[in-house]
Amino acid sequence: MSKDAATPRMEKIVSLCKRRGFIFQSSEIYGGLNGFWDYGPLGAELKRNLRDTWWNAMMRQRDDVVPLDASIIMHPAVWKASGHVDTFCDPMSACKHCQKLVRSDQVWSILAEQPWVQSLAALSDISSQTFDSPGLLRWADRKGKEMAPNLALVRNPSVTLSGLAERSKTSRDHPLSAQEFTQYLATEQLAATALITPCPHCGGELTAPRPFNLMLRTHTGPIASDENVAYLRPETAQAIFVQFKNVYDSSRVRVPFGIGQIGKAFRNEITPRNYIFRSREFEQMELEFFIKPDEAIRLLHGSVSAWHEGADLTEPQPNWGWEMWHRYWVDQRTRYYAGIGLGSDVLDYHWQKPEELAHYARATVDILYKFPFGTEELEGIAARGNFDLTQHQKHSGKPLEVFDEELKAACANLTDEQKRTCIDEAYAERKNPETPRADVAEFWEKLFAGNYLPHVIEPSAGLDRLALAILAQAFDEEIVTDEKGKSETRTVLRFHPRVAPIKCAIFPLLKNRPELVAKAKEVVALLRPHLNIFYDEAGAIGRRYRRQDEAGTPFGLTIDFDTLGENGPEKKDTVTLRQRDSMQQERIAIAELRGWLLDKTS
Amino acid sequence: MSKDAATPRMEKIVSLCKRRGFIFQSSEIYGGLNGFWDYGPLGAELKRNLRDTWWNAMMRQRDDVVPLDASIIMHPAVWKASGHVDTFCDPMSACKHCQKLVRSDQVWSILAEQPWVQSLAALSDISSQTFDSPGLLRWADRKGKEMAPNLALVRNPSVTLSGLAERSKTSRDHPLSAQEFTQYLATEQLAATALITPCPHCGGELTAPRPFNLMLRTHTGPIASDENVAYLRPETAQAIFVQFKNVYDSSRVRVPFGIGQIGKAFRNEITPRNYIFRSREFEQMELEFFIKPDEAIRLLHGSVSAWHEGADLTEPQPNWGWEMWHRYWVDQRTRYYAGIGLGSDVLDYHWQKPEELAHYARATVDILYKFPFGTEELEGIAARGNFDLTQHQKHSGKPLEVFDEELKAACANLTDEQKRTCIDEAYAERKNPETPRADVAEFWEKLFAGNYLPHVIEPSAGLDRLALAILAQAFDEEIVTDEKGKSETRTVLRFHPRVAPIKCAIFPLLKNRPELVAKAKEVVALLRPHLNIFYDEAGAIGRRYRRQDEAGTPFGLTIDFDTLGENGPEKKDTVTLRQRDSMQQERIAIAELRGWLLDKTS
Repeated sequence: MSKDAATPRMEKIVSLCKRRGFIFQSSEIYGGLNGFWDYGPLGAELKRNLRDTWWNAMMRQRDDVVPLDASIIMHPAVWKASGHVDTFCDPMSACKHCQKLVRSDQVWSILAEQPWVQSLAALSDISSQTFDSPGLLRWADRKGKEMAPNLALVRNPSVTLSGLAERSKTSRDHPLSAQEFTQYLATEQLAATALITPCPHCGGELTAPRPFNLMLRTHTGPIASDENVAYLRPETAQAIFVQFKNVYDSSRVRVPFGIGQIGKAFRNEITPRNYIFRSREFEQMELEFFIKPDEAIRLLHGSVSAWHEGADLTEPQPNWGWEMWHRYWVDQRTRYYAGIGLGSDVLDYHWQKPEELAHYARATVDILYKFPFGTEELEGIAARGNFDLTQHQKHSGKPLEVFDEELKAACANLTDEQKRTCIDEAYAERKNPETPRADVAEFWEKLFAGNYLPHVIEPSAGLDRLALAILAQAFDEEIVTDEKGKSETRTVLRFHPRVAPIKCAIFPLLKNRPELVAKAKEVVALLRPHLNIFYDEAGAIGRRYRRQDEAGTPFGLTIDFDTLGENGPEKKDTVTLRQRDSMQQERIAIAELRGWLLDKTS
Repeated sequence: MSKDAATPRMEKIVSLCKRRGFIFQSSEIYGGLNGFWDYGPLGAELKRNLRDTWWNAMMRQRDDVVPLDASIIMHPAVWKASGHVDTFCDPMSACKHCQKLVRSDQVWSILAEQPWVQSLAALSDISSQTFDSPGLLRWADRKGKEMAPNLALVRNPSVTLSGLAERSKTSRDHPLSAQEFTQYLATEQLAATALITPCPHCGGELTAPRPFNLMLRTHTGPIASDENVAYLRPETAQAIFVQFKNVYDSSRVRVPFGIGQIGKAFRNEITPRNYIFRSREFEQMELEFFIKPDEAIRLLHGSVSAWHEGADLTEPQPNWGWEMWHRYWVDQRTRYYAGIGLGSDVLDYHWQKPEELAHYARATVDILYKFPFGTEELEGIAARGNFDLTQHQKHSGKPLEVFDEELKAACANLTDEQKRTCIDEAYAERKNPETPRADVAEFWEKLFAGNYLPHVIEPSAGLDRLALAILAQAFDEEIVTDEKGKSETRTVLRFHPRVAPIKCAIFPLLKNRPELVAKAKEVVALLRPHLNIFYDEAGAIGRRYRRQDEAGTPFGLTIDFDTLGENGPEKKDTVTLRQRDSMQQERIAIAELRGWLLDKTS
């Protein structure tokens, strides 16, 4: 989708979300707070339904996953062990002129959105390298002073432009890109080879990137001392690792099993972007699924079932290694998204290349959704080895290993010779040449005794970006023509009924006819214990339908005089059922409503 | 309940909660973090069920309440307007000797729990004022040095004791209380009149109380400057007031209506206490129910229906004033608690006395539960007038008033004379004698035009303390005798089925009979889409029942050979249904299970 077509679509979605009470800016009456959003009545129900679908699919409908609901603030040692204190950083540059800060790796995409860059681009035909100096000078003198007061072109137009002309002459066989063009306009020292990335806010010079830790800090306890520093969790996953042993010891679970959690997390994003897609406060839905190390599988089953194209992923098998489990969860999560209206046509997959992977990760795939502003990550599914449990075992000094009776039994018949062979082979195949043989031997001796640290597959999804994907996917406008031949644009949110905030709206045909109102309220009372219902008696029935189209309500019921039996007995106690997507209407008996609606919405 | 009986009960609950995975200390492997708790698999389900009951009762089953899901971090101006920045404080004292901090108004109840105070109390019969000096001296010399090293009695035993003996002689007709006794032992200057409250940790001298703000602070944005200070919300309520107008404008709600929210809040409690009852991170379930001011009711209906003993509270009426609405919500919340197993026999009500009320509150009632450690607040229901909306309107400069067409119409026929009378009477009855007449007139003129700031009734409940009340209420131990005449203690959590984490456990009689296992899994597949199910095949059936008793699972189903039809056709496809509370067993047809269980658990 081209940028021009995308932007209005996104603007329309944002506008609808505010107008209909899906999403508001946090603290809007105080000017808002950058990177924080509130969910209004419809948004709160939408998020709640999304949480429920995840909770159901990942936990309640399975035997092998249990939930956790941990605190947002944890002991600071957790974040030291996990590596977040030292390395959870984004590169940040400061502007030497306006002092504003910007995320270094996003400068160019932020620049592209700036009016002054667009204004400059419109003045120059970069591709043909003919620089309209008088136009640029006029821009620098007037608009530039307002829009980009610290751009070199604005501060010192003639020096900058003459340097630019010089540069363009010498670069005939290497045409200037829009990016280089803007960089040149930002620097006065064109003789120097270094190009300068301009500040998106004022065109000034940015410093070199330095790491900026994204964790929000606070203090617990009555004194704000270094001892009392605490962090708001930047992810929910670590709590699962930290409580792994407590859950294991209290819940009768055995590897392979998972622990799932839904909860808030915080990242001090330098530049929150794209509406609720990248905010500073957000909600995650994370599963850590613990599996046996491949070495244990081999001892238990002789070999490890490795993934191959066309492998059957429907039912987990005892001899699955990490790769099959990883593929299994990619498959499970894909099915999940299909079940709430995000089919394979709107998703994409990015398998991280070896050089993109975190040092401990064996494989990571990002499930992407085609947002109006670009194809971006909805969920990452990583095979993280046993990195996290290893770190927490080391830093806490508490053993986090599990004991596997079956594994011990399987190893009981191994001869010393066979055991030595295992160790020898593993040592020969070690990834890190500096690993001492003793470490390899220790791991295997523990394994022979039935003890190991489980490995983990981590499907980690963002609830807010999922809500945004669902909204973007649902948003539609169509031209409809009414009975009188009048055309108008119908705005409709085509939510999957499973996630729609309101499942069914109930309308008495006329509000000033008590018998219609009473009957409609009877229907409300019948359905409300089972479904989220909206009752509306105000305005023409067509307008009431349209309002529900905008709210994404899949079904509308109208109680009319037929319902009361005034036009004969055959339509008595039936209502008009109107479908949001097709706008088709049919009659349905009140007695059948509950079953019919539950069937469609669950 | 006496202290001795209460403590073990609480200890048993805490122990069961850890052992069975209801509640763990946050970051336990790192030594824990004071005032933070995690909910394990059963606790997470329990909390989730409690949230659902609230969401259902307060919102989905009503026409007049809509939800909000706002960010934890809001604009700092919110907390300035609400008064939290300036006044949300607890009194705090520091120990001059050990530097520890303690909440001043809790010192005496914390002291009563200290081993050294109990040890001292055991040495002295205070009521008869015979001080066993040699005993106290020995205590000071040995145990005291370990337990309360900075107590005056320990630092300078003879001076303290002789002063005490002196004081006791002169106070024959005013016997020393345990509190005075401890205060004396803490001071060396007995000649001086000031008594010194001892530090609970070391017996040292505490400073006078000073205010300590309970909000957790952080910074948003890349620079930790004063400009970027933000607070973690200490309550969810303010977000509702701040977004009041957005919700009102987007949701087709009209006063009276409510906005409900469930979410985390944070308070930097000086001394977190009583397990999850008072923690630093907790979850609230708050409703702000907006009503018309009584003045508007009078203009609309001629008079205001005031509360009286025996008033009918079941169905809201148009002429209700704030007092009826306040009583209505107390009644609604009482019904809610009864519906989840907290009947009127275990609740208590504290109607705040005029001197206890916040300056803006018209009435506040606390609903209390009889916890093992004392009768404490579960929920507060306050009539807050229009204080909050007034503050936010003033501080934000944004109009938050609503327009009421009916009210305007009702006032259209008032003569100038009648209007003046309204203003005159209101001015004569003004509460604050300094209120200018112009202010009174302005309020009424707006009212005549149909405009006002709604007043609010606020039922505000704590989810964690509710979970603790539910656990405390459910916890039971009973002596049971098995078929062989052997007695043992059965620990059982008698949760209301509606809130029980697991609704039904399913057991094949024997795990090594594939046909039993297969049939049991069929039953699991039948019920799992509708209920949270636990499948267990390990161990003797009696032990499996006991494990579910401890988890509070109300129903257990056993699949045996009768189920398979091996003992004749009449019991084929029936299972044994065992009830947790009575331990009674009966046969029930598999075909009836779904309906039967849904009926009992929803």
